[in-house]
Amino acid sequence: MQRTGFAKAECPVARALDAIGDWWSLLIVRDAFDGLRRFGDFQRNLGIAKGMLTARLRKLVETGVLEQVAASDGSAYLEYALTKRGHDLFPIVVSLRQWGEAHLYARGEPHSVLLDHAGQAVGQLVLPSKNGKPLSWADTKVRKVAARRR
Amino acid sequence: MQRTGFAKAECPVARALDAIGDWWSLLIVRDAFDGLRRFGDFQRNLGIAKGMLTARLRKLVETGVLEQVAASDGSAYLEYALTKRGHDLFPIVVSLRQWGEAHLYARGEPHSVLLDHAGQAVGQLVLPSKNGKPLSWADTKVRKVAARRR
Repeated sequence: MQRTGFAKAECPVARALDAIGDWWSLLIVRDAFDGLRRFGDFQRNLGIAKGMLTARLRKLVETGVLEQVAASDGSAYLEYALTKRGHDLFPIVVSLRQWGEAHLYARGEPHSVLLDHAGQAVGQLVLPSKNGKPLSWADTKVRKVAARRR
Repeated sequence: MQRTGFAKAECPVARALDAIGDWWSLLIVRDAFDGLRRFGDFQRNLGIAKGMLTARLRKLVETGVLEQVAASDGSAYLEYALTKRGHDLFPIVVSLRQWGEAHLYARGEPHSVLLDHAGQAVGQLVLPSKNGKPLSWADTKVRKVAARRR
């Protein structure tokens, strides 16, 4: 899949997609949010081939989304932990979840749920204007980078 | 890339990734939010091979994200328009944009900007609790689907 053109894109959506890599990478990030830290745990949960998992973990470390840290139990293993940049992927994971919940399940079909500390389901993501008013897609417009004179 | 296992996933993140398909598809959706509607316009803007674009548009129509409609100028062309399900992808596109803006540009490096109708840059996506309090990743936890007795 050709994607090399987007690392220098003037559109942050394209550059973000290029940096994250592919779907598998976001599922690894999702698992990291759920507390997984070890290669074997990711591998079992995702059912992904070891070579593919190795390549995607390496890319996520290179992108600065994950970092390798000493094992939390004092053993010799290395674990993978989300960095600040990785934790900032949270709204992406949540927006995917909320779209999936809204459109991809039959009524009553079970799915996992995102809860707050009190055990309450979270609300929907909100895009506020600078003065706090919630915005929909119809309220917004992208201003492109102006073409430079040559 | 193996992805067939996720269409029936109990995790809405996995099911959403499976339904959307791949990065190209989200760039097509981004362009549709920017007002593009014709095959040739998508093709020119994305620089994607025609066969790949055809396959991705077909998948987006099958998924119910886009629909084919009569051309807005009365010509014989068919155009692609976002459905309700497609418009609901807006937070996903915005969350990718905001992560890219925060982490993938050097200081002063130009990028496109999302504005409200008044021409003001939009704020950051907010995840509210049911009582309106903004939540971070550290405030939330996923409740998995309970294993069924067999």
